[in-house]
Amino acid sequence: MPTTLELLEEHRLFGGWQQRWRHHSSVLGCNMTFGIFLPGPQGDAPPPVVWCLAGLTCTDENFSVKSGAQRVAAELGLVLVMPDTSPRGDEVPNDAAYDLGQGAGFYLNATQEPWRQNFHMYDYINEELPALIAASFKVSDRQAVMGHSMGGHGALMLALRNPQKFASASAFSPIVNPCSVPWGQKAFNAYLGEDREQWRQYDSCWLMQQAQQPLPLLIDQGDSDQFLADQLQPEQLEAIAQQKGWPLTLRIQPGYDHSYFFISSFVEDHLRFHAQHLLA
Amino acid sequence: MPTTLELLEEHRLFGGWQQRWRHHSSVLGCNMTFGIFLPGPQGDAPPPVVWCLAGLTCTDENFSVKSGAQRVAAELGLVLVMPDTSPRGDEVPNDAAYDLGQGAGFYLNATQEPWRQNFHMYDYINEELPALIAASFKVSDRQAVMGHSMGGHGALMLALRNPQKFASASAFSPIVNPCSVPWGQKAFNAYLGEDREQWRQYDSCWLMQQAQQPLPLLIDQGDSDQFLADQLQPEQLEAIAQQKGWPLTLRIQPGYDHSYFFISSFVEDHLRFHAQHLLA
Repeated sequence: MPTTLELLEEHRLFGGWQQRWRHHSSVLGCNMTFGIFLPGPQGDAPPPVVWCLAGLTCTDENFSVKSGAQRVAAELGLVLVMPDTSPRGDEVPNDAAYDLGQGAGFYLNATQEPWRQNFHMYDYINEELPALIAASFKVSDRQAVMGHSMGGHGALMLALRNPQKFASASAFSPIVNPCSVPWGQKAFNAYLGEDREQWRQYDSCWLMQQAQQPLPLLIDQGDSDQFLADQLQPEQLEAIAQQKGWPLTLRIQPGYDHSYFFISSFVEDHLRFHAQHLLA
Repeated sequence: MPTTLELLEEHRLFGGWQQRWRHHSSVLGCNMTFGIFLPGPQGDAPPPVVWCLAGLTCTDENFSVKSGAQRVAAELGLVLVMPDTSPRGDEVPNDAAYDLGQGAGFYLNATQEPWRQNFHMYDYINEELPALIAASFKVSDRQAVMGHSMGGHGALMLALRNPQKFASASAFSPIVNPCSVPWGQKAFNAYLGEDREQWRQYDSCWLMQQAQQPLPLLIDQGDSDQFLADQLQPEQLEAIAQQKGWPLTLRIQPGYDHSYFFISSFVEDHLRFHAQHLLA
């Protein structure tokens, strides 16, 4: 059965269109929503796609409503796709904590009960949703990925595992070493059990250590971010990049915190960075 | 007793600061919150203020989070003040409808029960809050005002009644003739009773008919706005402006609706319009 896309909302925005769609995900076993920004007419070439992966507690709407990214995407001729952060619904397992279950999918494929039936966000973001976007919208196969916090982990991890797919990756306040920090350890224990080999497949620091094919990376991190010391530690990834001679730019932004106000302040730089590699 | 300002939130944003404050309003008889954007250092001259008045169901947070106005305000050196749209709290009268009571203050001074004790948003926005801002922040006495929908009504009405106070006024999707449309009639009946003379003091069309001192006005209106025909009718105000030779620019924006996606698409034009008059 082909996936049916149901249009939930559509708004004209910066000469393009912000749409919100619902579809049934067979990978996740539930209905999902995503946001997409389609820039106005750009000529004949189909526009490239930038994936925008959100953080803990977020839905597809956070990047859509708060990031201000569409203004720049409209100017540069980029499609933005804003997925949800986990499977959803009454039939989907959940947890009372904000950092586990619905809203906290961590962009991985769970192997443990009760999560293993639905929590396959890695396959959803890496395969099912890209195929649906490619089949349903006029887009090129050029892609970049960015994200925030848990979504920054998702963006870097996806790009490091699939360097052939992405022209570039960037992150705001990413979790770069989930194997070593409380958010990641809690999630990986619940979703993946005790098998540390599985954990490492979702850890950007470990992945960069192993990787052979460099790709351009940009990270912005506020130095007033309450999660910086305990959960984020971007200098861990920077050290590996320096050791390997990888093109990673880490910018520490003074006074900025973990909020979408931070994202909106620098999202223009991220999209220009991606456009430079996507449109080259 | 001097008013005490309590800082609830502070975020670095585009080189400036987005703050959220709580204070006791003696005019409204309740605690109120407002947002303020303070641009980064601009030299010695204190920056002018642009008031951002929100619409039905909104709080101080809608403009703060969704408009994208701070990027432009940071560049132009403008302070933005984002007030709430009504008195608030368990002790304040309310109504189950979205278009009456809390979240629907209509920027007027109510004379009818049960609203007359608290619903004095005209005096709050015109006197109490400006005095508090002037006493608490480094700002110049140059001001402009803009708003959306009910807040567009508030912006135009305030400026038409107080042309000496405002360098310019602008609105997105404003209610220009509340005496003649369902939203305004419902609110004015409830808040002001049957005295049509009082109603007219809050009707921008009537006020412009009477006014002697023109001031520059800019209105943006989407032609896919679901409320355009029944509630908004900006051509009514445009006709009066043309008849009187007033400097009103009304722009009909094709495909745009009533949402903050519309506001964010054109807020840069509004702030540049105000800066042109504020910084002249």
